[in-house]
Amino acid sequence: MVDVDQYRVKEEPYYRTVSDEVTLYEAAYAARMPVMLKGPTGCGKTRFVEYIAWKLQKPLITIACHEDMTASDLVGRFLLDATGTRWQDGPLTIAARIGAICYLDEVVEARQDTTVVIHPLTDHRRNLPLEKKGELVTAHPDFQLVISYNPGYQSLMKDLKQSTKQRFGALDFDYPAAEVEAEIVAHETGINMTVAEKLVAIAHRARNLKGHGLDEGISTRLLVYAGNLIAKNIDPKSACHMTLVRPLTDDPDMRDTLDAAVNTYF
Amino acid sequence: MVDVDQYRVKEEPYYRTVSDEVTLYEAAYAARMPVMLKGPTGCGKTRFVEYIAWKLQKPLITIACHEDMTASDLVGRFLLDATGTRWQDGPLTIAARIGAICYLDEVVEARQDTTVVIHPLTDHRRNLPLEKKGELVTAHPDFQLVISYNPGYQSLMKDLKQSTKQRFGALDFDYPAAEVEAEIVAHETGINMTVAEKLVAIAHRARNLKGHGLDEGISTRLLVYAGNLIAKNIDPKSACHMTLVRPLTDDPDMRDTLDAAVNTYF
Amino acid sequence: MVDVDQYRVKEEPYYRTVSDEVTLYEAAYAARMPVMLKGPTGCGKTRFVEYIAWKLQKPLITIACHEDMTASDLVGRFLLDATGTRWQDGPLTIAARIGAICYLDEVVEARQDTTVVIHPLTDHRRNLPLEKKGELVTAHPDFQLVISYNPGYQSLMKDLKQSTKQRFGALDFDYPAAEVEAEIVAHETGINMTVAEKLVAIAHRARNLKGHGLDEGISTRLLVYAGNLIAKNIDPKSACHMTLVRPLTDDPDMRDTLDAAVNTYF
Amino acid sequence: MVDVDQYRVKEEPYYRTVSDEVTLYEAAYAARMPVMLKGPTGCGKTRFVEYIAWKLQKPLITIACHEDMTASDLVGRFLLDATGTRWQDGPLTIAARIGAICYLDEVVEARQDTTVVIHPLTDHRRNLPLEKKGELVTAHPDFQLVISYNPGYQSLMKDLKQSTKQRFGALDFDYPAAEVEAEIVAHETGINMTVAEKLVAIAHRARNLKGHGLDEGISTRLLVYAGNLIAKNIDPKSACHMTLVRPLTDDPDMRDTLDAAVNTYF
Amino acid sequence: MVDVDQYRVKEEPYYRTVSDEVTLYEAAYAARMPVMLKGPTGCGKTRFVEYIAWKLQKPLITIACHEDMTASDLVGRFLLDATGTRWQDGPLTIAARIGAICYLDEVVEARQDTTVVIHPLTDHRRNLPLEKKGELVTAHPDFQLVISYNPGYQSLMKDLKQSTKQRFGALDFDYPAAEVEAEIVAHETGINMTVAEKLVAIAHRARNLKGHGLDEGISTRLLVYAGNLIAKNIDPKSACHMTLVRPLTDDPDMRDTLDAAVNTYF
Amino acid sequence: MVDVDQYRVKEEPYYRTVSDEVTLYEAAYAARMPVMLKGPTGCGKTRFVEYIAWKLQKPLITIACHEDMTASDLVGRFLLDATGTRWQDGPLTIAARIGAICYLDEVVEARQDTTVVIHPLTDHRRNLPLEKKGELVTAHPDFQLVISYNPGYQSLMKDLKQSTKQRFGALDFDYPAAEVEAEIVAHETGINMTVAEKLVAIAHRARNLKGHGLDEGISTRLLVYAGNLIAKNIDPKSACHMTLVRPLTDDPDMRDTLDAAVNTYF
Repeated sequence: MVDVDQYRVKEEPYYRTVSDEVTLYEAAYAARMPVMLKGPTGCGKTRFVEYIAWKLQKPLITIACHEDMTASDLVGRFLLDATGTRWQDGPLTIAARIGAICYLDEVVEARQDTTVVIHPLTDHRRNLPLEKKGELVTAHPDFQLVISYNPGYQSLMKDLKQSTKQRFGALDFDYPAAEVEAEIVAHETGINMTVAEKLVAIAHRARNLKGHGLDEGISTRLLVYAGNLIAKNIDPKSACHMTLVRPLTDDPDMRDTLDAAVNTYF
Repeated sequence: MVDVDQYRVKEEPYYRTVSDEVTLYEAAYAARMPVMLKGPTGCGKTRFVEYIAWKLQKPLITIACHEDMTASDLVGRFLLDATGTRWQDGPLTIAARIGAICYLDEVVEARQDTTVVIHPLTDHRRNLPLEKKGELVTAHPDFQLVISYNPGYQSLMKDLKQSTKQRFGALDFDYPAAEVEAEIVAHETGINMTVAEKLVAIAHRARNLKGHGLDEGISTRLLVYAGNLIAKNIDPKSACHMTLVRPLTDDPDMRDTLDAAVNTYF
Repeated sequence: MVDVDQYRVKEEPYYRTVSDEVTLYEAAYAARMPVMLKGPTGCGKTRFVEYIAWKLQKPLITIACHEDMTASDLVGRFLLDATGTRWQDGPLTIAARIGAICYLDEVVEARQDTTVVIHPLTDHRRNLPLEKKGELVTAHPDFQLVISYNPGYQSLMKDLKQSTKQRFGALDFDYPAAEVEAEIVAHETGINMTVAEKLVAIAHRARNLKGHGLDEGISTRLLVYAGNLIAKNIDPKSACHMTLVRPLTDDPDMRDTLDAAVNTYF
Repeated sequence: MVDVDQYRVKEEPYYRTVSDEVTLYEAAYAARMPVMLKGPTGCGKTRFVEYIAWKLQKPLITIACHEDMTASDLVGRFLLDATGTRWQDGPLTIAARIGAICYLDEVVEARQDTTVVIHPLTDHRRNLPLEKKGELVTAHPDFQLVISYNPGYQSLMKDLKQSTKQRFGALDFDYPAAEVEAEIVAHETGINMTVAEKLVAIAHRARNLKGHGLDEGISTRLLVYAGNLIAKNIDPKSACHMTLVRPLTDDPDMRDTLDAAVNTYF
Repeated sequence: MVDVDQYRVKEEPYYRTVSDEVTLYEAAYAARMPVMLKGPTGCGKTRFVEYIAWKLQKPLITIACHEDMTASDLVGRFLLDATGTRWQDGPLTIAARIGAICYLDEVVEARQDTTVVIHPLTDHRRNLPLEKKGELVTAHPDFQLVISYNPGYQSLMKDLKQSTKQRFGALDFDYPAAEVEAEIVAHETGINMTVAEKLVAIAHRARNLKGHGLDEGISTRLLVYAGNLIAKNIDPKSACHMTLVRPLTDDPDMRDTLDAAVNTYF
Repeated sequence: MVDVDQYRVKEEPYYRTVSDEVTLYEAAYAARMPVMLKGPTGCGKTRFVEYIAWKLQKPLITIACHEDMTASDLVGRFLLDATGTRWQDGPLTIAARIGAICYLDEVVEARQDTTVVIHPLTDHRRNLPLEKKGELVTAHPDFQLVISYNPGYQSLMKDLKQSTKQRFGALDFDYPAAEVEAEIVAHETGINMTVAEKLVAIAHRARNLKGHGLDEGISTRLLVYAGNLIAKNIDPKSACHMTLVRPLTDDPDMRDTLDAAVNTYF
């Protein structure tokens, strides 16, 4: 009934291995251990999960978590039908049934207590009670749960409970090494390595400002944006201003500092 | 099924280019980079988007964001029908399907976590999961997302998350230069340039008071209102009082200051 | 389908012009400029709008704003029908379609973000997106929006956003001049001018106490109430106590002060 | 369709006139002026309204206000029917249609903004817009609105807005004079005047403690309860303890003080 | 239609009279006076009401109050049916119709404003308006309302309003005298009086700690639990630890103190 | 109608008895005493309940509690059907009907007032009122309630009420003794005892840090995760870092301390 094919990653995503993360993930998957990916915005966590799903040839169901997400949004609900009510599986239930890798993106955004519904899927029980339907779904042997988590957002109000955290093995992610990052930017945008390296150098200056006026450093994604504009013949300074400076901050001093970094290289 | 024509901008909107904003936007659109427009109330951001949509000959879907906007308001929902439930696409889903420019106006008003639903549309995935329907919509190649943002409103409670900000290139907007603004006011109201220049001069005085008793300066829109009344033979002082003074503030001192500015020119 | 006649003001409302407010309003209406009426409780803002609607011979739709008012209450919603769902226009949509003057009474009571839905009706677009229905309503050429606003209630929590304020021309209202107010009271209750002038004199004393123990002065409406009781042969002191003193305050000292004012004239 | 008879007060309620409250109310009703009854718990406000409804021979609809009361609870809503939706008038709408006296009991409990819906019924318009139904109900000529209000509860959070207060004439209520109250207690319970006077004397002592350890004095209703138990041959001390002491306070010192008052008379 | 029999107490509940509470209650019931039972957790309030219902041979409807309880949960609601909507009486309405004793358990847990719906059932009116149905239910002559109330929970946020309190006569409850309590424990568990007396002695020690490290003393119910385990041949110390120590507190010092009390007797 | 078999524990769960907990539980079950299991995250409470259900050969229904859980989620609700509404028992009602052990996992997460619905099932009444359905369910003789509770989470906001606590006998759980825990880890992962003992030794070091920088120590579950990775030929240091260090904390100092503990043994 469910179209499993729509959840398959059809082409190999471009992913540059940084360390032993692929080996560790594969061992964790072999034990069907739930995995938590930690790291800053735009450093490639989502891309990594797509790469893994492609490598393991498993369907992937991604769920963007948000504060209004209810347990029903994950698990499913009854819908009205011409002949009464009809049960509709939620994405987590579909993933459990078809044996997908289920990726809960930015899980700290979800209400802490909503995350309780994933507990029985993350211990030896590996089942999901559909309480409203009175059914106990046993997870497909291929099913595995992955969550992502940005420690920088962590606050008293929004943190995972220990009883949730202790159900996951964890992998740390960070921006790639300078050379690797430049290769990624060049590959994704078509600009040459010299320009890509300049963009990465600007990013490194900005990342040092994290916690000193910037909430977050310049992500690889923004470097790709800058490269995209330069590849469309936009003047590099304008391209950097539009993609690396203005989106990050409205503070005039911080903008001057970032502009100075841009001017150093272009 | 969807009437795409209703979303087309039929006539060229009156728009005066200020700087390189059109060139930058066109390069960003060519890369389908999401764009964020920053600037104060009534300086022409909405008009700019309409002009771009007309120039690129793409349909435009505008969504006024507000705090009660749910993900379903953007994405769609099931409606009851004579034969059961029927899915109704929300405006974001329609835009993704028909390849429109989708403009989220005053996006800071939306709940931060509701904005999470736009994430997969703003990275390499370019898709939108309709979780309640179990469908994964792949965006039309022409689809692009634009958001507007008034930095003056920014507060601890209402700011975009970095993981959202870093998905957009950004353009800054401000009130037009004095001469340009006078031309706009004259063009839109039919008053002569002398009167229009006086109105702009009053606005400049008020804009200097921003942060010194006024939350926001006099917008171009209010100048057009004043011109409209003057064109209907209302005494300029009364017209200015009704459109440039009373709407902005109830503080007697600020009103005196603004009235003095009006009296200087009329 | 909609019964436009029920929204017409059939008889000329009793309205005493105070200043140039009718002329200014007519010029604003001619430009279809949205108008904001500012002033204290019970000074005649609602009566003024009814008078204008009668004078311009336009239908009038009044909406009492309150904190629980949702965008759907203004715009419309789907209702269940024997054959499925049926769309029901809300009062704002009806007004936009039939070309009514739409009066949002006490607009500061509405949730700030609900007021966002009126934005596209108050600029050059003059349209109203019915997002749930997927329809873009273009306003009838006669449609105009009026809002009322009591600056005395203004607080940090409840104020209009600048991006809303700057969409309106504004008119100030206050209690009428003593002579005019006495005429109004006499006309509405049938008491003679001598008694009416005494009531107005009491009101003037109370209005001076605003901010010095009273949140709001005695309104014209309460003077009419006092006159009504006196016309029914109630002793003036008892009538004033019931209508001018007890409703305003429970503070014993303020009550004594107000009673003293009553005793001075009766 | 509506069974008006169920809202009639069939028998004359036992009511002892205290001052000119009946005369004032009748004059207010003759002018259809909305009336506000102010006074402490259990002093006879509800009984007074029933007496007035009986005296004027008008139907009476009483609505107990509470914080969760929505505008729909007052005005009405659509219900599902075999053939679709059916509108059901709320109690306020029924009262407006049949010309009842509509009594909103403990109106400060209602959300301030819910009370906005009564505004058009309390000025010269005398109508009630059923916005969800698209109908404008004109009130029956006999319709009148009464509200009750306990000033002792008044707080920053829960007070009526001036724009609501200034729509009502007001009557003050208090516990009856000692002799009258004893007569009421004797009449309602069948105990003799000597015992009734003792109960009233105890109440007077307790009422002096209001604000000095007691939130509210002993009401006439509790005196009737005490009399009821004594009439069933319960020892007066036990009866007073059960009805005049324990319900009021759990504070041991206050209980001792009240017991001492009981022991003085029994 | 309603199965009254299911609400009858079929067998005489085991209840040991402590003082004059049965006599007072019967007199209150004869006057249909609403009654409030005050006392700590597990001291027998619920059991007392069941005993009274059995003694008076009236049906008993018990409602466990909680913060989410809405007026509809008490009064009733419309349910969808094959032929449209069908009204379903809530437990309070059923009680009013069939003449049951209606027991609102832990009434302070209910939202203060929800309790407003019981007001017309607790004064001379003795009726219950089903506002959503447009019906005014007159209570059956046998109907009476009882509420329970734990003064220890009383807080600024959760207390009954005086206008509610003053509608009830009140009875105080406490743990039974030592001898009586030992008899109860022995009777309910089958252990001998010697052991039962030891358990009661331990409870007395713990009750002295209330307010000095314990929120609440050991209830009679927990003593019965301890007796149950001892009757199943569990070592008395283990039984006491499981039922009298661990459930009450996690504080190591308090646990030591309680264990010491256990060791004194076993 | 209900498929009881799906609730049976088919195979004996691997459970190592620690103390007299099985004996005490069996005695409590024989008296149908409700039981509360207290202890830290991942120490085996859920496993214990499964073992007991298997040993007693009773069906087991587990409910993961969370803050959004309503009484209806436990008790049941009406669902729409082709022929109207149909009642669907919730998991608590099913458990009461079929005589299951009903396990409320992490009960402190539930709203305190929702827990009120379990009260009549946990005293001599042993019944469950389905108020919305007007049915009083008498529990099956085999029914018993178990709850779990992590005292470490206890806070002013989230604690069980005494009136709930005093309805349960309580058992304390903690991590197993070192030797037992190593056996468990070896048994569950297939690694040898030497490595398992090293993992347990690391856990002991981490558990001493609880309250000194760690919210919770390393659970047995995480040790099993580490063993799983080692059994898949992952280097022990990497395995420990992924499962024992990163999931617990993002604090650099705490991570160094934990890494040092890992390096001591591997």
